[in-house]
Amino acid sequence: MTTETHREVVRDLGAAAKDASRTLRTLDRAAKDAALLRMARVLEEQQQNILEANALDVAAAEQAGLEPALVDRLRLDEGRLAGVVAAVRQVAELDDPVGEILKGWSAAQELQLQKVRVPIGVIGIIYESRPNVTVDAATLCFKAGNAVLLRGGSEAVHSNRALGAALAQALAEEGLPAGCIGVVPFTDREGVRHMAEMDECLDLIIPRGGHKLIETVVSLARMPVLKHYNGVCHVYVDATADLEMAAAISENAKVQRPGVCNAMETLLVHRDVAADFLPFHAARLQELGVEIRGDETVCELVPSATPAMAADWPEEFLDLILAVRVVDSLDEATAHIARYGSSHTEAIVTEDEEAAERFLAEVDSSTVLWNASTRFADGGEFGFGAEIGISTDKLHARGPMALEELTIYKYVARGTGQVRS
Amino acid sequence: MTTETHREVVRDLGAAAKDASRTLRTLDRAAKDAALLRMARVLEEQQQNILEANALDVAAAEQAGLEPALVDRLRLDEGRLAGVVAAVRQVAELDDPVGEILKGWSAAQELQLQKVRVPIGVIGIIYESRPNVTVDAATLCFKAGNAVLLRGGSEAVHSNRALGAALAQALAEEGLPAGCIGVVPFTDREGVRHMAEMDECLDLIIPRGGHKLIETVVSLARMPVLKHYNGVCHVYVDATADLEMAAAISENAKVQRPGVCNAMETLLVHRDVAADFLPFHAARLQELGVEIRGDETVCELVPSATPAMAADWPEEFLDLILAVRVVDSLDEATAHIARYGSSHTEAIVTEDEEAAERFLAEVDSSTVLWNASTRFADGGEFGFGAEIGISTDKLHARGPMALEELTIYKYVARGTGQVRS
Repeated sequence: MTTETHREVVRDLGAAAKDASRTLRTLDRAAKDAALLRMARVLEEQQQNILEANALDVAAAEQAGLEPALVDRLRLDEGRLAGVVAAVRQVAELDDPVGEILKGWSAAQELQLQKVRVPIGVIGIIYESRPNVTVDAATLCFKAGNAVLLRGGSEAVHSNRALGAALAQALAEEGLPAGCIGVVPFTDREGVRHMAEMDECLDLIIPRGGHKLIETVVSLARMPVLKHYNGVCHVYVDATADLEMAAAISENAKVQRPGVCNAMETLLVHRDVAADFLPFHAARLQELGVEIRGDETVCELVPSATPAMAADWPEEFLDLILAVRVVDSLDEATAHIARYGSSHTEAIVTEDEEAAERFLAEVDSSTVLWNASTRFADGGEFGFGAEIGISTDKLHARGPMALEELTIYKYVARGTGQVRS
Repeated sequence: MTTETHREVVRDLGAAAKDASRTLRTLDRAAKDAALLRMARVLEEQQQNILEANALDVAAAEQAGLEPALVDRLRLDEGRLAGVVAAVRQVAELDDPVGEILKGWSAAQELQLQKVRVPIGVIGIIYESRPNVTVDAATLCFKAGNAVLLRGGSEAVHSNRALGAALAQALAEEGLPAGCIGVVPFTDREGVRHMAEMDECLDLIIPRGGHKLIETVVSLARMPVLKHYNGVCHVYVDATADLEMAAAISENAKVQRPGVCNAMETLLVHRDVAADFLPFHAARLQELGVEIRGDETVCELVPSATPAMAADWPEEFLDLILAVRVVDSLDEATAHIARYGSSHTEAIVTEDEEAAERFLAEVDSSTVLWNASTRFADGGEFGFGAEIGISTDKLHARGPMALEELTIYKYVARGTGQVRS
């Protein structure tokens, strides 16, 4: 297909999404939930088609020699598809954020003003292999009253088309425009470029995937981007920490699921407790398969540790590797975090309330915790009922993003003929 | 100065701003207000320096043959400077948005969560001629706990330096880092490019100026941009409108201050009332100097009107020119607005509550009004006490932006040793 035809196809999908967003904007909760439940039913009915399409993707990935972990992320089976469908039913049960009156007041000349939550409009999602994102992202955007344009990765192209077809069928059965959920039918970089340039249709792009994909979207996008770069999360064990608690939190933050963004990458330990804490805790982590990369003091206390290199401090290992540094003070800990962290999630373990409150105030991360594991920085754990991602941006949405973060507001004024003097 | 030196100077200012933002983040209200009142006093003390610097800019602008209206925007005098200083004292009186607990709840395993309002960090402001923006923007960003990097226009370079020096002196007297308010000392396009690329220091850019400046910033910026494109605002006179009220609102929206973004550019009139409304109202507008550009029906009812061209409908005249169109229905009115409007501000005049509520819900503008003039879409009129601009974006902030819009939030968790299972 030529670039020109590509662009036209993407533009037509964008225009259809923009049209559909006008319908979606005023759809009430009952209509949206009915459509969501219909999507769940059609996904169940289409199970065989979907799994067959997925099998094509999995076979192609295996043939292309993709890493087993990536092939596994791509794979759908009856159980996983049931999980996807259950998530759709859960989205239907969530409260509708649209229409919430955030504030109401009487302004100049008794003009009655309200700040009302409304959908954003049209959201583009650019993502990689996991096909469940197609359904998760589409249904969350839909519930928040947004049209969505989905551009998945080439590895999942058959799965995404089959899932998209099921969602389209459900929309049609509910009498809703197909533009509510658009699936871009090709998966090369050109599609990304065309989407990134369509600021007349797309109000927002959310890229989900590797650093390179996100960099590309950020540099091309003419519209706002909500993104997740790194999660270089820290746990700081303060001088007055309960060391049993510190060990439990550090172990949980590092080991429970090392490949996710809210896992700990660097452990900072106050010098006063380093000798008491590090040898027994490091031994436990090493038992669990963790490689320790420590500064000089750490290597003295833990002879089996590898010396840390400069490149280890800003690194997101996403693996059973932990950088460990001994610091002289809370200030040194927060300075380390400011320099090397990614403003995602940091925790302090301390019995000193004043130190804790200073850490919570001074550390500029989307989530800061006192005496709890970094692994709690998660839409599900926060009770949001869903998550479209975790933002490391500082505008609009920070941290776990769910339905509210897919909305914005407008000002509504009701008057009696007021003119400005 | 070479490009390389340019870049270094801007980067140093950015790094200083980022450092300063760490201090500003935890500054309490009393300290911020004391600094603001000090800024007001130093601006008064430095009046002579500032006005002399401004005189250089005005003389250069006149010599360069700048339009009188632009020269006037550039000019400061004792009265205008007193206005700038009064605005600073007003900012000191505004409530501090930082620290507000937006939400508090108990999450998984009784983890105590709060969503707390915090500063954004470092904000870049790129603006054109009016030197008062230097002080307005700096003090609003400061009150919301943000460091700011200001890049003004070349016409106001002497004024901006003098104002920046006064603000720097006040910061120094309060023992605050100079990086809180940075003034980029050169005004060419290179400075814009360097700022736009500094996404490691700048969390947000707000461009204030003409369409071309904003386009440049949007295409270069690697960080979020909050911007104001056009204000193509509409008033729709519905079939059941009180025609006296409609005339008063339309006149106010067009004539009271035609050069501002919330002035009406297009009047839409329902066919049922066109013959009753348009001849008398058009005559009144023409008396006030307004040029009417109408569609066919309008030109029949108002023979002195000029026929409207296709280019008139999406045009932001910012002048005593009004496009007028007769529509057959509310749907035709909202479709016209969706097609040609800029999602800024639209008003309906009607006695029919159902029609009004449909308009308020269906029109996707940052401010929608029923029976009131579009001129009310303004931070001051809304009671925000200040305004840093009006956003036509759909992320983070929409419509009038004041202190709250210069903040974001973070999640703060206080636990007792919780780990995730």
